Amino acid sequence: MTTNPIQLFDTESSTFTYILAAPGDTDAVIIDPVARHWERDLRHLERLGLKLRLVLETHAHADHVTSAGKLCEMTGALAAVPGGCGIAPAELQLQDGEVLRFGPGEEIRVLHTPGHTAGSMSYAWRRNVFTGDALLIDGCGRTDFQGGSAQALYDSVTGKLFTLPDDTRVWPGHDYQGQSVSTIGWEKRHNARLAGRSRADFARLMDQLDLPRPKLIDVAVPANRNLGLPHGG
Amino acid sequence: MTTNPIQLFDTESSTFTYILAAPGDTDAVIIDPVARHWERDLRHLERLGLKLRLVLETHAHADHVTSAGKLCEMTGALAAVPGGCGIAPAELQLQDGEVLRFGPGEEIRVLHTPGHTAGSMSYAWRRNVFTGDALLIDGCGRTDFQGGSAQALYDSVTGKLFTLPDDTRVWPGHDYQGQSVSTIGWEKRHNARLAGRSRADFARLMDQLDLPRPKLIDVAVPANRNLGLPHGG
Repeated sequence: MTTNPIQLFDTESSTFTYILAAPGDTDAVIIDPVARHWERDLRHLERLGLKLRLVLETHAHADHVTSAGKLCEMTGALAAVPGGCGIAPAELQLQDGEVLRFGPGEEIRVLHTPGHTAGSMSYAWRRNVFTGDALLIDGCGRTDFQGGSAQALYDSVTGKLFTLPDDTRVWPGHDYQGQSVSTIGWEKRHNARLAGRSRADFARLMDQLDLPRPKLIDVAVPANRNLGLPHGG
Repeated sequence: MTTNPIQLFDTESSTFTYILAAPGDTDAVIIDPVARHWERDLRHLERLGLKLRLVLETHAHADHVTSAGKLCEMTGALAAVPGGCGIAPAELQLQDGEVLRFGPGEEIRVLHTPGHTAGSMSYAWRRNVFTGDALLIDGCGRTDFQGGSAQALYDSVTGKLFTLPDDTRVWPGHDYQGQSVSTIGWEKRHNARLAGRSRADFARLMDQLDLPRPKLIDVAVPANRNLGLPHGG
């Protein structure tokens, strides 16, 4: 059954953070929390009467630092991350096809969706899919760093995400135009970068984007590989 | 049962717009849509496979113009507005205690919650309450124009909204700090303006705020009293 997550937004990096909980239950999962909002996010859990069990990352982000480590320290939740992202301190190193469980019987299905980064994963829960920077609303993530590959992204989106039921809600890792949610069916038919395009066409399009290097990449990626916690000590 | 709405945000006025739909059904209600986002909002309904039935306003806003009239024109939905806000063209002029129905058996309870403006209303649906500018997360709306009254707002919040079940989710009309949702229980215990304060104390606090006049008030209020549609013709 459709159950919308709680959606939170970071205006600096246009990043979405999601809180998932089954209706009527107190166990919660958070996806892609942002460092500067750790208190805001704990406050939301407190207000909603939720207990944090898992903190999920879709990939090692290049544009913001995660609060995953901090939230785990504060709550005793476990960090669960893509096995191929080099995020060493996380307790759970996820593999494609794995199922995470929380609450009275909730299941999160782990989908390896490489292309934005080599390790990127999406998470499917109750007719929702949290796509990180693989599939965005009417767009997709860039493919020019961290093992990114336009061909791999094309295969991840068209061969994996687009096989989910059409009414699956798509909750992206970012949006830059005030949008909140889409569906697999709509993206399959209308996505400006992917709908009706061949793999080679898509790769050409992505090659031509010529995007600037993310300002924070040299700070953010190493920090995120340590769950946003200070190194060493 | 708890069912989260879809939450959309306008960065210019920090206004939240909400889309409500029962899980598995296609009938939808939108609350407080913003003029410049009417296409975004229709696109969301299309993506989600929803049919718009009702457009609700919590009050005649002073800080942004509504798209209620436009959305009704485009979809055939009905506009439902507080009876005391002077929004003449709306088909449904709501009174306190009324119940609006949509979908297979969904009910929205109308709560007159004056104080931010004399006519302001809140809407209760499935353990959620949409409070407009009466109750905000850890705050409340101003009370110094459009028939606003600190005493009335105190009575609306403490005497009406705070009698809802503690786990009722509070979805405000605005947030200026990146927050998304709260609960009645948390606001009762912790709201910085209202928790543990007497009516007289609260009125004194609101009197001392000395806020600037909203830049758009002379344009927005007349426009919103016409559902955001051009006058005359």
